[in-house]
Amino acid sequence: MRDAAATRRRLLDAATEEFAAHGIAGARVDRIAAAARSNKAQMYGFFGSKDGLFDAVLAEHFELIVNAAPLDGADLPGYATALYDAYLQHPQAVRLATWSRLERHGGGGDLFADGVDHSAPKVALIATAQRDGHVDPRLDPADVLSLVVAMAMSWSPASILLAAGAEEPDAVHERRRAALSTAVRRAVTVEGQPAR
Amino acid sequence: MRDAAATRRRLLDAATEEFAAHGIAGARVDRIAAAARSNKAQMYGFFGSKDGLFDAVLAEHFELIVNAAPLDGADLPGYATALYDAYLQHPQAVRLATWSRLERHGGGGDLFADGVDHSAPKVALIATAQRDGHVDPRLDPADVLSLVVAMAMSWSPASILLAAGAEEPDAVHERRRAALSTAVRRAVTVEGQPAR
Repeated sequence: MRDAAATRRRLLDAATEEFAAHGIAGARVDRIAAAARSNKAQMYGFFGSKDGLFDAVLAEHFELIVNAAPLDGADLPGYATALYDAYLQHPQAVRLATWSRLERHGGGGDLFADGVDHSAPKVALIATAQRDGHVDPRLDPADVLSLVVAMAMSWSPASILLAAGAEEPDAVHERRRAALSTAVRRAVTVEGQPAR
Repeated sequence: MRDAAATRRRLLDAATEEFAAHGIAGARVDRIAAAARSNKAQMYGFFGSKDGLFDAVLAEHFELIVNAAPLDGADLPGYATALYDAYLQHPQAVRLATWSRLERHGGGGDLFADGVDHSAPKVALIATAQRDGHVDPRLDPADVLSLVVAMAMSWSPASILLAAGAEEPDAVHERRRAALSTAVRRAVTVEGQPAR
């Protein structure tokens, strides 16, 4: 049994690499099995199918995708820079989420089609922050969340402009964090607005 | 010859649908050939390979991806809302660009690996707008471009949060355009800043 658990773990690790790099259609089950020192029969025994294996990998990355950083409605600039760092540290999570969007949920709507609105708790925190005078109350709280996450993803591994890389100089990351923090503060917080 | 041109056109149209929906790895050449009332031999004759066919499709969408809207440095909020509309109208262009990022240019850097920096003319326009007093001169102009484009893509077909759809009510699109315009104005323009 210990061997089975270890093999399952190696399959998940190898599948994470393979799916993050190539997506669902592009992933090769025999490459995953070989990298995990396993075989296709074992993989199908554990996960049923290539899609089942992707589901397991995506589920393991759920927290890194949905809760990459804790949202503090009173500090959305801090939330954005924490997301920037999380995306830099876990590019695979961003890639897995984007493959899932493109390959499975191209029609729009929520990324995880499990019937749960995973944005709802964050939207509620932002609505509270609007009532508490931290976030501009004239904006829709769901729009605030979409804008702040998009700003944090400006240089993400899925960006069609410039994708940031961990190998870039610290000064570049610092410059982007500062720009991001300033832009988020001005764009959506009350603190960033002209006094009236 | 006229027949050949018409067949080539049908192959490109069918390939656009197929690549936008399924990406490079997920696309099936026989589905493309069948949809174009052609065959694989003709497709290889025109385009050499599946990758060559994707190159041709991507090249046709270059303008829609790189110059989806004209950038006016004095009106970045208008640029952002024009991009929002362009992404809504041409979701395939966003999907093709994102597939290219994920499947070909995962290592980061510029999306089009043709040795040309396609962002440079836009960055130069923003730098001019900074000198002319329209855009906050303390921000790096490349960061301004990345942030504004990312904000416009908040609800794009590649978003890991909520992807907008043309079937949504006009009022929702209007609400997002207004939020986007306000957020961009405050985040990066001088006009959006408190008077000093």
